[in-house]
Amino acid sequence: MNRTCLAVILAAGDSTRMKSSMSKVLHPIAGLPMIAHVMTALQAAGMQDAVLVVGRDADKVTQAGSLPGLQVSSVLQTERRGTGHAVLTARETIAKGYDDVLVTYGDVPLVKPETFLAARDKRAEGADIVVIGFEAANPFGYGRLLIENGELLAIREEKDASEDERRITRCNSGLMVINGARALEWLEKIGNSNAKGEYYLTDIVEIARAKGARVVAIDAPEEELAGCNTRAELAGLEALWQKRRRHALMLSGVSMIAPETVFLAHDTVLSPDVLIEPNVVFGPGVTVESGAVIHAFSHLEGAHVAEGATVGPFARLRPGANLGEGAKVGNFCEVKKAEIGAGAKVNHLTYIGDAFVGAGTNIGAGTITCNYDGVNKHETRIGAHAFIGSNSALVAPVTIGDGAYVASGSVITADVPAEALAFGRARQEVKPERATAVRARALALKAAQKAER
Amino acid sequence: MNRTCLAVILAAGDSTRMKSSMSKVLHPIAGLPMIAHVMTALQAAGMQDAVLVVGRDADKVTQAGSLPGLQVSSVLQTERRGTGHAVLTARETIAKGYDDVLVTYGDVPLVKPETFLAARDKRAEGADIVVIGFEAANPFGYGRLLIENGELLAIREEKDASEDERRITRCNSGLMVINGARALEWLEKIGNSNAKGEYYLTDIVEIARAKGARVVAIDAPEEELAGCNTRAELAGLEALWQKRRRHALMLSGVSMIAPETVFLAHDTVLSPDVLIEPNVVFGPGVTVESGAVIHAFSHLEGAHVAEGATVGPFARLRPGANLGEGAKVGNFCEVKKAEIGAGAKVNHLTYIGDAFVGAGTNIGAGTITCNYDGVNKHETRIGAHAFIGSNSALVAPVTIGDGAYVASGSVITADVPAEALAFGRARQEVKPERATAVRARALALKAAQKAER
Amino acid sequence: MNRTCLAVILAAGDSTRMKSSMSKVLHPIAGLPMIAHVMTALQAAGMQDAVLVVGRDADKVTQAGSLPGLQVSSVLQTERRGTGHAVLTARETIAKGYDDVLVTYGDVPLVKPETFLAARDKRAEGADIVVIGFEAANPFGYGRLLIENGELLAIREEKDASEDERRITRCNSGLMVINGARALEWLEKIGNSNAKGEYYLTDIVEIARAKGARVVAIDAPEEELAGCNTRAELAGLEALWQKRRRHALMLSGVSMIAPETVFLAHDTVLSPDVLIEPNVVFGPGVTVESGAVIHAFSHLEGAHVAEGATVGPFARLRPGANLGEGAKVGNFCEVKKAEIGAGAKVNHLTYIGDAFVGAGTNIGAGTITCNYDGVNKHETRIGAHAFIGSNSALVAPVTIGDGAYVASGSVITADVPAEALAFGRARQEVKPERATAVRARALALKAAQKAER
Repeated sequence: MNRTCLAVILAAGDSTRMKSSMSKVLHPIAGLPMIAHVMTALQAAGMQDAVLVVGRDADKVTQAGSLPGLQVSSVLQTERRGTGHAVLTARETIAKGYDDVLVTYGDVPLVKPETFLAARDKRAEGADIVVIGFEAANPFGYGRLLIENGELLAIREEKDASEDERRITRCNSGLMVINGARALEWLEKIGNSNAKGEYYLTDIVEIARAKGARVVAIDAPEEELAGCNTRAELAGLEALWQKRRRHALMLSGVSMIAPETVFLAHDTVLSPDVLIEPNVVFGPGVTVESGAVIHAFSHLEGAHVAEGATVGPFARLRPGANLGEGAKVGNFCEVKKAEIGAGAKVNHLTYIGDAFVGAGTNIGAGTITCNYDGVNKHETRIGAHAFIGSNSALVAPVTIGDGAYVASGSVITADVPAEALAFGRARQEVKPERATAVRARALALKAAQKAER
Repeated sequence: MNRTCLAVILAAGDSTRMKSSMSKVLHPIAGLPMIAHVMTALQAAGMQDAVLVVGRDADKVTQAGSLPGLQVSSVLQTERRGTGHAVLTARETIAKGYDDVLVTYGDVPLVKPETFLAARDKRAEGADIVVIGFEAANPFGYGRLLIENGELLAIREEKDASEDERRITRCNSGLMVINGARALEWLEKIGNSNAKGEYYLTDIVEIARAKGARVVAIDAPEEELAGCNTRAELAGLEALWQKRRRHALMLSGVSMIAPETVFLAHDTVLSPDVLIEPNVVFGPGVTVESGAVIHAFSHLEGAHVAEGATVGPFARLRPGANLGEGAKVGNFCEVKKAEIGAGAKVNHLTYIGDAFVGAGTNIGAGTITCNYDGVNKHETRIGAHAFIGSNSALVAPVTIGDGAYVASGSVITADVPAEALAFGRARQEVKPERATAVRARALALKAAQKAER
Repeated sequence: MNRTCLAVILAAGDSTRMKSSMSKVLHPIAGLPMIAHVMTALQAAGMQDAVLVVGRDADKVTQAGSLPGLQVSSVLQTERRGTGHAVLTARETIAKGYDDVLVTYGDVPLVKPETFLAARDKRAEGADIVVIGFEAANPFGYGRLLIENGELLAIREEKDASEDERRITRCNSGLMVINGARALEWLEKIGNSNAKGEYYLTDIVEIARAKGARVVAIDAPEEELAGCNTRAELAGLEALWQKRRRHALMLSGVSMIAPETVFLAHDTVLSPDVLIEPNVVFGPGVTVESGAVIHAFSHLEGAHVAEGATVGPFARLRPGANLGEGAKVGNFCEVKKAEIGAGAKVNHLTYIGDAFVGAGTNIGAGTITCNYDGVNKHETRIGAHAFIGSNSALVAPVTIGDGAYVASGSVITADVPAEALAFGRARQEVKPERATAVRARALALKAAQKAER
């Protein structure tokens, strides 16, 4: 699109019903602040410039809303005097002159770029104002769109609507695209002679029409236009986002046994023929390649899982976990900042952190890389086709060579050369009949304690 | 309210469709027996006295239904001859003389105190009988409320209803408040000349009206009045309870990313600005303070989590777990009867039981407090700012001083003074090239076993 | 039923919209390939013979569809020329002569045997063709059933339907039972003079009627007839299957706190008075006996849980896990190919593999059976009433006698006789004040590294 467009994003709300210590537009959806979802969609819809109208947590909101590649400025709204007044806070930028001015909201994060584009297309075809509406399942409380012969005559608020008008189910989302050349003229005409004494952006429809402008409405799905005033509604937005994304992934060839139990992050990448079992949570930054299986009860964040690798059940991959082809990380295992080589196995009750595990190596159950000395993190390097016996502790920094073998239950504090066998455990002693005595003593103690009470 | 009210709770059902070894009113909702939910709501609605009409598991039901502060007696219903007959089992108590007699059911656990109060208010305004009804989504099978000029004329059972009456969607819940002075007179007039030969409480409406009484109906939401005959319906009640409670918590400022995956207990206390990630289960007795984060796949019971502390993912807090401000309990960690000091970290694969961990102390991955000797439990005390190296076993009773350092892989059986360094591990030995031999021997064994088969 | 019946199962689709590397009928529902669900229902409905019409992954589909006790053959469909053509691929088998020929689909896995039987019953009563229809919630896109005086006149495709016909909500599932004696005659009359040039099985209705045959329709629930073209629809089928099975189990006396979070396998056996907490996943081959409790976040596969045993939370039972009466397997424990004796406890952070644990034995937290030497698996045998101290490693093959006691933190490499006490840990050394020095050195290192950057 060759037209210039300025997006004005109203994000100054007090969010009191969120009962939160931060602005509601900073609350995340799929791990990304709500405001960043809005800005991402605006950028994808080809906006060049955007003004964030901010209030509470102004700096944080501006920061969260700033994307590389989108020119974002922000203006502080110091008073709450209605949406019309809020848009005018951006007067200076609007005055720079744009073909289109798009008004949207920081707490309406699910609008698709296609919807913004459809509104701009209508504007390009000659409409002066394009209001984005929706067919409401239950219109009660929404402003109704009064449409005649394809023109939007007015937006009627619930309380001002006649009985007939209340039956209208096409409603106002509050989003609109305005002729940039005339936006200020019309915005400045909005008055506040109403019960609340506020300046309502919706009045622009009748004002512009009175000046001969053509106003139309387009429809978008109600779900896209859902907003957020409470944490219950926030959860509702998250649910809609998750449902949409899971569905898209399944259509692209990802299998989910129980999609409603899979929680994706905004940037989760899953390839076709990946299988996700029930109850999997993705934090940000995860990529899973084709043929990999993520078993139930797994938690992944900042991790890469190569083709044919398997994760879980009950596995946790933390940032920097990098699983090679066919590698396995199994139950009650945590991997952090570590490369697990192709075909290597980390199957049970293990912590691998700040480490490199070579291809084909087997890490026994209960192995711990002791990577932290209370102050610094140190590295563990394990070669290919090595075998780390169960319940071993590898005290970093330490290197274990290719094909080396660490005996079960060892504490390894020094490097082990390739093909060497390392022990670090005490010799076993057996005291016959002594268990009987130990037990008798413990029982006597118990009896004594009971007597004391 | 200055009026006296007796609650009669019918809880004698055989529950055969539950296919259970116990009475259905003992089955829990949110970890509390169904009957206790009923009694709690009655108490909140200001009842002084209550009679439980019990049958199966009479003693256990009476015990589960007895709350401090509510005078609860119970009478045994030995025959099943209909609801009218069941209420009369409480004849002696009713005869003591109450302004109001409220009849409700042990298997209808979601009625809110407000609903009981609304019925009593109507009674206080002069109605002799107040029936609690509801607008049924699908009225089939329910008794219909025949209402004219604000008076309830009769309750018509499905099978006796005319075609017109079947179209009525306001239905009978079975709950009612009756003029206590006349309740016995009317109850005793209920006959059993019907197909089943049972005494139906609903007949009281017409009997009382014939005696000049005024009978009215009030409405409550259908969900509140849901009952329970099968375990599928029990799960339905649990779902309604959970939904209601999650919603209330979110409105109070608790964030839940996926509320439908969070399971609360009847007494869970979550402060505003607590974040609950997906898949968290709360057993009874949990309090979480503001700013704390409960990560995915966590299970808490009898635990206190202070401000800014973080739990999980994959953490289990058991009764007596007490996390200080900013403390962390991470993946595959279990904490039982233990205080974790402010800012202390228990991050990976650890069991802390019967213990005290000082502020700022770091517990390495794979640490186990060995608190049990097969007979008795013993205590582990760890000071502040100590460091417990990974994969250590602390054999209780044992005390580790402030700032002490336990080397990774140690077994600690004796006290460690403050600022001391303790080792309890074998020296490492390395046998060069020996892994090759070990592997060869293992392969030979495998081949031999294969040959044998 | 004494009539002979041949089932023809169309399973040759390309499944392109599945975006899968395998045929869609091989995708599992509840852990069993879709095609096997179909075949199981057919067998339960008394079919003797079945022909699988296969295309993609022909051998695998045939294998997955072959059940013991059902005579299954397969024919390769090399061209995709419509359903009518597909059924004729089985010409040779149909020609053998059956009373009935039942046509169904490999990707319609939820049809109940009762539905197949109902269709065959209608055929037995004299109908020549019995089409299985359903009342569609949204009929758009389905073929409509044109029924008059109980006879099915024709199946009208959406695009050919008049406005009146489009209002019909009884739709065609595609499943039908055909008079076996005349099936080939009618099938061969199906032409392809339509827009797509395909042979449509639905044309058989009008063809047969023109020859004087009686054609009727029966209804089945829409849910049973759901098919599968995408992975999103596959997830939908899984959800329907799970819902159906959970409901049946609850009605049989199994308690599920949150049934929507319990995932069953096709063969999961749960007895009455079993309690399943939220978030439990069953793989194939699990049986749980009465009174057992499966706590939240548990994963079971190929396991047997005896009466009164408890599993989880956060437990994983793998194939061959066999828990005795009242045994307990607790959090972060994995049990594989092991018998856990009556009343034995494996409560925390433990791996028990290839093992036998005697009755009443207590396995301490963090115990690992070291069953693998990198090549072979070895067995661990622990007697009754033994005590394995926490954080022990039992290096298999090894036997620990009845009543023996293993000290915490031991590595056990040799057998321990009954009632003996075994140690395998280093003596503790304490170096006073040394922690201060260690910490100072670590801090210095940190400072140095920082300076380097």
